Amino acid sequence: MAQKRIARRSGEFDLIARFFKPLAADAAARGLDDDAAVFDPPPGRSLVVTTDMLSAGVHFLPRADPADIAWKALAVNLSDLAAMGAAPVGYTLALALGDDADDAWIAAFASGLGAAQAAFGVALLGGDTTATPGPTTVSVTAIGTVEAGCAVPRSGARPRDIVCVTGTIGDGALGLRTAQGETLGLSHADAAYLSARYTRPTPRLGVVDGVAGVHACADVSDGLVADAGHIADASGVAVVIEAAAVPLSDAARAAVAADPTLLETVLTGGDDYELVCAVAPDMMIEGLIPVGRAEAGAGVTVVDADGIPMPLGRAGWTHR
Amino acid sequence: MAQKRIARRSGEFDLIARFFKPLAADAAARGLDDDAAVFDPPPGRSLVVTTDMLSAGVHFLPRADPADIAWKALAVNLSDLAAMGAAPVGYTLALALGDDADDAWIAAFASGLGAAQAAFGVALLGGDTTATPGPTTVSVTAIGTVEAGCAVPRSGARPRDIVCVTGTIGDGALGLRTAQGETLGLSHADAAYLSARYTRPTPRLGVVDGVAGVHACADVSDGLVADAGHIADASGVAVVIEAAAVPLSDAARAAVAADPTLLETVLTGGDDYELVCAVAPDMMIEGLIPVGRAEAGAGVTVVDADGIPMPLGRAGWTHR
Repeated sequence: MAQKRIARRSGEFDLIARFFKPLAADAAARGLDDDAAVFDPPPGRSLVVTTDMLSAGVHFLPRADPADIAWKALAVNLSDLAAMGAAPVGYTLALALGDDADDAWIAAFASGLGAAQAAFGVALLGGDTTATPGPTTVSVTAIGTVEAGCAVPRSGARPRDIVCVTGTIGDGALGLRTAQGETLGLSHADAAYLSARYTRPTPRLGVVDGVAGVHACADVSDGLVADAGHIADASGVAVVIEAAAVPLSDAARAAVAADPTLLETVLTGGDDYELVCAVAPDMMIEGLIPVGRAEAGAGVTVVDADGIPMPLGRAGWTHR
Repeated sequence: MAQKRIARRSGEFDLIARFFKPLAADAAARGLDDDAAVFDPPPGRSLVVTTDMLSAGVHFLPRADPADIAWKALAVNLSDLAAMGAAPVGYTLALALGDDADDAWIAAFASGLGAAQAAFGVALLGGDTTATPGPTTVSVTAIGTVEAGCAVPRSGARPRDIVCVTGTIGDGALGLRTAQGETLGLSHADAAYLSARYTRPTPRLGVVDGVAGVHACADVSDGLVADAGHIADASGVAVVIEAAAVPLSDAARAAVAADPTLLETVLTGGDDYELVCAVAPDMMIEGLIPVGRAEAGAGVTVVDADGIPMPLGRAGWTHR
């Protein structure tokens, strides 16, 4: 967020300086005054870098709270680092501000970014802003480090590995619907819980970092079935998921009880930002919940309590 | 450019795999198959990271050649690294594709990116694409390295330093006008030269890397006066630029001869992507052309051949 870039929109310079400079307190960001940020990677660690872009009307609801948008933009990038077993260092931000992104919007956005920074222990390294006649678009690049040689790929799963997740599945997809005003037959508290899981996901940082026996990992952004499928494809194995073993939150369990067809949404919906991993069969790892296994073969099968494959209409998740 | 992110737009998966995977040949990008890229920074070097975003209708002409857009998106980020004295390693790309960005557009964009990669010695590390109802927007984050402790700030200029540039000034701002169809009284060849300087700028990588005596540096993106002003402000010095010493291309010289008021455009226009530096007074550094000096004081003054300050209507550059 070199100042030169920001002054192009009348009055924006002061605003950005006021709201974004405090987020760049890390010395690496050089107070956003230089052309780029500079930092020293810890010796013996590899750098890990990932980029995700969120666009109004595609990745977030047009009238979403800007603080939630900021939180999610950072969280989904940190989730990619978490899936690699990497610890975050910082991030850059490129922000295309639509006509509706006024001063109050930017202030709320910056506050949400600050809350996420504090929650996840990262700092703004730099960025760029521009005005756009189109929808507001937020692009974040997150940078982290991992012990050299210890980044967790998608391609390492082996037959007999246990397939695990880091937390409850389906909250994101159900939460998208409650955030849009659907009740799903839920109490207000349950609906609010799911909405919050959708709007403010928690990247599972630190769960697979440096843990021996984690052969492959991905984050659950496209849906459990689709993301397990990415591991299966990259690893050349089949993944079998036992539907009854997939952990559900009380709220998601209540929603599925009210409408059993929502189980498919739970299994194939996205935006959970839990991790799905393949772990050596003799390993019990804290924070990982077994949901199935890897086998020789290809693709993902979900089986019911009797071991019978369940038909699933969608393999993953497509943005509305 | 994790595959999961790309498959969301019908048919896009194959296209991106075909056009972008070859750009990610570096092992760090892991074939774009993992959640993030991984690379090992050279020991003893600091990491440098910068982000710039280009949006159709703001930073590039709506009907611009997609290959030129790609080139420029990468070049302007590498220019920020160059200004820090950093050598590039790679970059990530976040691409919001507007309705007019069809398969042919993406193919042309990827070809321009490939040409720029080859010219500047970098590789695609990863990225994200999304469809947008708004204008196509390209966000690049470039990563480089610099000898630890040797990053060049904006804030190091001292009184008596020589202010230098790395090449001809004003070609970018004049080239924007020729690219829009103005002749500026120029020959076809001169107009084409200026247009090319605007559409395919060359980042001045390697000029100030590890060179003792370069106290401060910025790239000329907002205009020579504005960017020299950033050094003056950050360093707490005044900068005096001698208009007659500013190097002009033959084409720019011809344009100014035809219309002397264009001299102001040359001095205050942007998009040159040369560097402006403050250098210790006893240093003569290859590739650097003296244009003025730093003094005690504040702000930027441009003086004519008689040492008389010239009035300048604009301090820098605002996007159309």
